[in-house]
Amino acid sequence: MLGGCGATPRIAPAAPFAGRRRLRELGIVIGELPTGRWNAITDVPGVRVGHVTRIEGAGPLVPGKGPIRTGVTAILPTEDVVREPVAAARFTLNGNGELTGLGVVDRSGTLEVPILLTDTSNVGRVMNGALSWLLETYPEIGDSVPVPTPVVGETWAAFLHDAEGRHLSDEHVMAALRGAASGPVPEGAVGGGTGMMAYGFKGGIGTASRRLSEEEGGYTIGVLVQANHGRRGQLRVQGVPVGQEIRDLPPHEGRKSKSILIVGATDAPMLPVQLGRLCKRMALGLGRTGAVSMHGSGDLLLFFSNGMKGRREAATSAVQVWNDEQFDRCIQASVEATEEAVLNALCMAETMTGVDGNTAHALPLERLPALFDAHGRALDATR
Amino acid sequence: MLGGCGATPRIAPAAPFAGRRRLRELGIVIGELPTGRWNAITDVPGVRVGHVTRIEGAGPLVPGKGPIRTGVTAILPTEDVVREPVAAARFTLNGNGELTGLGVVDRSGTLEVPILLTDTSNVGRVMNGALSWLLETYPEIGDSVPVPTPVVGETWAAFLHDAEGRHLSDEHVMAALRGAASGPVPEGAVGGGTGMMAYGFKGGIGTASRRLSEEEGGYTIGVLVQANHGRRGQLRVQGVPVGQEIRDLPPHEGRKSKSILIVGATDAPMLPVQLGRLCKRMALGLGRTGAVSMHGSGDLLLFFSNGMKGRREAATSAVQVWNDEQFDRCIQASVEATEEAVLNALCMAETMTGVDGNTAHALPLERLPALFDAHGRALDATR
Amino acid sequence: MLGGCGATPRIAPAAPFAGRRRLRELGIVIGELPTGRWNAITDVPGVRVGHVTRIEGAGPLVPGKGPIRTGVTAILPTEDVVREPVAAARFTLNGNGELTGLGVVDRSGTLEVPILLTDTSNVGRVMNGALSWLLETYPEIGDSVPVPTPVVGETWAAFLHDAEGRHLSDEHVMAALRGAASGPVPEGAVGGGTGMMAYGFKGGIGTASRRLSEEEGGYTIGVLVQANHGRRGQLRVQGVPVGQEIRDLPPHEGRKSKSILIVGATDAPMLPVQLGRLCKRMALGLGRTGAVSMHGSGDLLLFFSNGMKGRREAATSAVQVWNDEQFDRCIQASVEATEEAVLNALCMAETMTGVDGNTAHALPLERLPALFDAHGRALDATR
Amino acid sequence: MLGGCGATPRIAPAAPFAGRRRLRELGIVIGELPTGRWNAITDVPGVRVGHVTRIEGAGPLVPGKGPIRTGVTAILPTEDVVREPVAAARFTLNGNGELTGLGVVDRSGTLEVPILLTDTSNVGRVMNGALSWLLETYPEIGDSVPVPTPVVGETWAAFLHDAEGRHLSDEHVMAALRGAASGPVPEGAVGGGTGMMAYGFKGGIGTASRRLSEEEGGYTIGVLVQANHGRRGQLRVQGVPVGQEIRDLPPHEGRKSKSILIVGATDAPMLPVQLGRLCKRMALGLGRTGAVSMHGSGDLLLFFSNGMKGRREAATSAVQVWNDEQFDRCIQASVEATEEAVLNALCMAETMTGVDGNTAHALPLERLPALFDAHGRALDATR
Repeated sequence: MLGGCGATPRIAPAAPFAGRRRLRELGIVIGELPTGRWNAITDVPGVRVGHVTRIEGAGPLVPGKGPIRTGVTAILPTEDVVREPVAAARFTLNGNGELTGLGVVDRSGTLEVPILLTDTSNVGRVMNGALSWLLETYPEIGDSVPVPTPVVGETWAAFLHDAEGRHLSDEHVMAALRGAASGPVPEGAVGGGTGMMAYGFKGGIGTASRRLSEEEGGYTIGVLVQANHGRRGQLRVQGVPVGQEIRDLPPHEGRKSKSILIVGATDAPMLPVQLGRLCKRMALGLGRTGAVSMHGSGDLLLFFSNGMKGRREAATSAVQVWNDEQFDRCIQASVEATEEAVLNALCMAETMTGVDGNTAHALPLERLPALFDAHGRALDATR
Repeated sequence: MLGGCGATPRIAPAAPFAGRRRLRELGIVIGELPTGRWNAITDVPGVRVGHVTRIEGAGPLVPGKGPIRTGVTAILPTEDVVREPVAAARFTLNGNGELTGLGVVDRSGTLEVPILLTDTSNVGRVMNGALSWLLETYPEIGDSVPVPTPVVGETWAAFLHDAEGRHLSDEHVMAALRGAASGPVPEGAVGGGTGMMAYGFKGGIGTASRRLSEEEGGYTIGVLVQANHGRRGQLRVQGVPVGQEIRDLPPHEGRKSKSILIVGATDAPMLPVQLGRLCKRMALGLGRTGAVSMHGSGDLLLFFSNGMKGRREAATSAVQVWNDEQFDRCIQASVEATEEAVLNALCMAETMTGVDGNTAHALPLERLPALFDAHGRALDATR
Repeated sequence: MLGGCGATPRIAPAAPFAGRRRLRELGIVIGELPTGRWNAITDVPGVRVGHVTRIEGAGPLVPGKGPIRTGVTAILPTEDVVREPVAAARFTLNGNGELTGLGVVDRSGTLEVPILLTDTSNVGRVMNGALSWLLETYPEIGDSVPVPTPVVGETWAAFLHDAEGRHLSDEHVMAALRGAASGPVPEGAVGGGTGMMAYGFKGGIGTASRRLSEEEGGYTIGVLVQANHGRRGQLRVQGVPVGQEIRDLPPHEGRKSKSILIVGATDAPMLPVQLGRLCKRMALGLGRTGAVSMHGSGDLLLFFSNGMKGRREAATSAVQVWNDEQFDRCIQASVEATEEAVLNALCMAETMTGVDGNTAHALPLERLPALFDAHGRALDATR
Repeated sequence: MLGGCGATPRIAPAAPFAGRRRLRELGIVIGELPTGRWNAITDVPGVRVGHVTRIEGAGPLVPGKGPIRTGVTAILPTEDVVREPVAAARFTLNGNGELTGLGVVDRSGTLEVPILLTDTSNVGRVMNGALSWLLETYPEIGDSVPVPTPVVGETWAAFLHDAEGRHLSDEHVMAALRGAASGPVPEGAVGGGTGMMAYGFKGGIGTASRRLSEEEGGYTIGVLVQANHGRRGQLRVQGVPVGQEIRDLPPHEGRKSKSILIVGATDAPMLPVQLGRLCKRMALGLGRTGAVSMHGSGDLLLFFSNGMKGRREAATSAVQVWNDEQFDRCIQASVEATEEAVLNALCMAETMTGVDGNTAHALPLERLPALFDAHGRALDATR
């Protein structure tokens, strides 16, 4: 069965804490800049996100069979990224992980394929599925146009998931790509984030955005993370040491390979050198949630601008370029959106039981108001 | 059918030019340093190479069906690279191509998986096949040890091969890995190099080595390339403008995506920072054959030392480290071995006809003696 | 007049808040790991620090004449760094600034000169002064040994100091180098940090250290910063939004070029690739104090290990190397020590009036207890 | 005495070999693309070069006194680089040397100061002199504009020059900057190249350029080198092993620190990511002359485009950008111009005697015709 996709918003639960709520719905506001409409990477015009989720089976691990807690998340940078590549850059904070297909980013500062996020053992499968989608969607590929290398990132889901099983097929990948949509983005245990954990709680997909003022062009900066990193005691929310305060709901911290994938997007016309700088700021935003990027982590960051399109005909083309002197607001937006996206992943993920009955507990949202009160932080009652 | 592997040496053809000969057998000697026993990357103790080759079908291109001119080449850095990672570093000369799995190289300067070379569309398939081999060979993976990301490089074979077809399966990859052997290495149109072209001639796999003196430890530096780059007029052999002198045997230069993958190996105990420097010297060796690393090229370089093993228990371990002050000979060896490996790929590849009857001509070895004579170069008659 | 040097500890003021106190003396403890004896970079055996400070003149700015608020800080990585280089690596978080002489660090992962920190316009002067010291101290330089390039970093002191004046001579630089000592390190408005500001308060030099357990070898990680970065509202101390709570003591935020130089040191035997990773963790530690590394900032980071000495004779040498699997504690130590070093700079700097009567206010330490109480943080009364 | 500057062309000696001739005047043509008018970096509109040369004293070395064989070369990227920074990027081939002030290049891909080349011990002096020129020329610096860090590169001249002497003052630097001119560029033993050697011959400054077709915009790519690298036997001219053929005129090869600085320039509007790629091609052009970039070399490369100016006001600006698909010709031009610039340095430098009577022999141009004939290369008689 193919699970939910971009068409199923989950951001407005009926009752407080009956389900999950995003950080901002709890009255906890990160930073100073306003969000975009959906507070999601899809606030960047043209960016679409799709998830396919597989949650199947329970009980003891049977390697190669299940239980299955995986999926794939697709991010399409623009309507037609293959024919009109976008500017991009990347940064490795700690590299114990994989994000394939960055050759062209390294060479030319361009991204010419969708971005796909999944679990570790499915990287080859998802690359192959992405190629199937590329060949189906772009008949010119393989003939006048070389086969592009798909961009596929992974994190490691062994606590909940049959981590050596390769439970995704071409069809799953193509469904995530075809189902990608603008609008609200499902978060938590969906898509590539299905089996993931962060700070000893259930983790997964999270997103957030910041909007620049009209004087600055009204551009948006959005971030999406697949969060599977960190130890309980490290977690900070708005500076409050939440991870040290919540010592029950036992975290699983035995395995070392915890990672986070962070994708930034903007429609502000940015050069690759500028996007590379914003990658480093996403790392600082991650750090604000308490992460120190441990040895076993694959903390890989990628930032693209679909406001800076590829140029493919005349010797030169006129493009709009963001002025460095106006860069501080973009820096701030990148830090804030990343911090909030990581926390949204925690806020939106529900408790999950997987392999061998292992349970990843959701961050107990109902405890946050008292915790914040004890730490002198007023919640924003207007939210 | 699974083709040849490491067990089939092809370096001693019966008659001059009846078949193919390596550059040095023609009396053309690159540089000053002595070669290892096989003049191959396998002269580095512990390094093994295996090829699986698929040459099937002829006639018009039927996308997804054939004709097939592909394969996979496996390089095993040491007896047990997963349990005992080796030091490594990489360099991107021009990045229009893919070499997956370098996260750990970037993070820690270690390589913990075999290296696999193939054609572009098979990257996902080969990653998946490598994972199957890893799971079969190392039962601890997926349990106490996370799934490592395979290192898979590609170049683009559309002139001869059904480039959008994915004609490799798990079995092909596992056969290349299982068949890897020390000793002489088949070159030319074998393994990942099967469908490749270089300088408008038939290209593919080439290898060479250099041996340091006993005073310097008797270490070996070996290089293996998958050559699929360059335009005819650029080719230089020992400084002689061979590509400008051979204007018939019409080259195919219409497609832009020509690339070369270069893998260096040594048993000299080298730190990652030292191996990164040797990568840049392999780029200079490539340049000596005339390459300028064009826009469409994926010129990716990786160097490992199996003389510097991973360290996994106590807080610190004693290791031998190469002294920088003795580095010049390693630089020279890396330049020379790369130059010769590229030329060996050309010398050993036979003329091949593939998709749509397209023909890639072999470098006409029989013309080289006269050409070299006209350019004042004496061939080494002792060879 | 040549000012204070390493021989004048200032860490034990007689009365609370009469003078200045280090963060930990206020009962505010950063992180979990124990400090070294002095909680300073000099806790790393062999590391010495010296300052020369010039605070002269008052009143209106006379370009080239004064008022003067500058100096130079020298860090000697080991007893004899020129003859026995140490391992090193660096990272640029944001590069609007200068740290000269990193060629050898980039090439070989070694540092073979002292590190000097000063204000922007004095970089050339300090390089020249360092060369004078090198020639005086090492007679072989210029003859059998080439002149090494000094490592000199700078930050911009225009609010308090005659920033285009070059008020340092060879003698000042040589005095800082000759006076370098182990033991407690003067902090705040001393040496290169004399005229600096951070988060809209008086900034300058700060330092801290962390000690690994005996099982981990008992090694030390120390950090020294020259802090001249950030805006008031960004400052966080242990997660408490101190900068948002202290809105009086008007900060000066008009000029854009605010920077921080961060130097890490350890006696744990680390490879350059490992030290490069620790540089990125120092950036995360900086981020914990609220910094987002703005456009105009020169946020440059350098980490050395004097437990990994240069190797200069035989082809190979045996060295101890830190094992990656034990790396997490070093990561944590680097984050914690950086966070505390930045805050120590603020805690130890006194209010200073400089050019045109401009005043940089000291962080009002006496307000911190109430602030921390309101934010639910208990101070450590045992300190 | 202040020596020659940009106003003294030396490219048209009266009689063959009475003086020196540029490579192309000998009938040796590198590559295929046409040169600009002067075959010099100054063919790039707006680029100016100035030299100040000090050749004083003879006889035994008196450290700090002489003999003096040094100078400084200034490259101004555009009419007003401080107020209108240009795009730039850099690459380190081997980093045993210094090129200061690259912080801003690393951060933003912009160059906002002139480039100065000198000998090793004068780096601090020349930085200080450049600062004097900046303060004199731009009154706003130090007030509303921070002091930029000068870009100063060095190579090591100990065989001919009092290498530990600092024989340049503010006045020399300012004279080089003020005297910078467009038009023909003096080459050989002038400016920063005065005391330099390359491939065991007298080296120094060399330059060359290539011009793109009108269809490609008619842009120019120019290169200037300060050549002080390589061993005799390595030298290749157009593939001919000249260094192996000329074994007399004994080279000095005892000292290890031989380096080359390479500066590229273009008026084609290039992004920093594109300029970084061209830097790597300059390295390949260097390699074509035989260099392998030895351990002791400081092989530092910088490329700027004054066709891509800084943007300083509105949030975004429209700029022209070079299209990647048209990049191959720029690659070829960069390789060719670098190869020829290195050889021009050798061709134009005259034999020089310096410290202790040491003699650096000029490349004997009169032998090249016979050598080329023996190697089957026709000289271009039309030159």
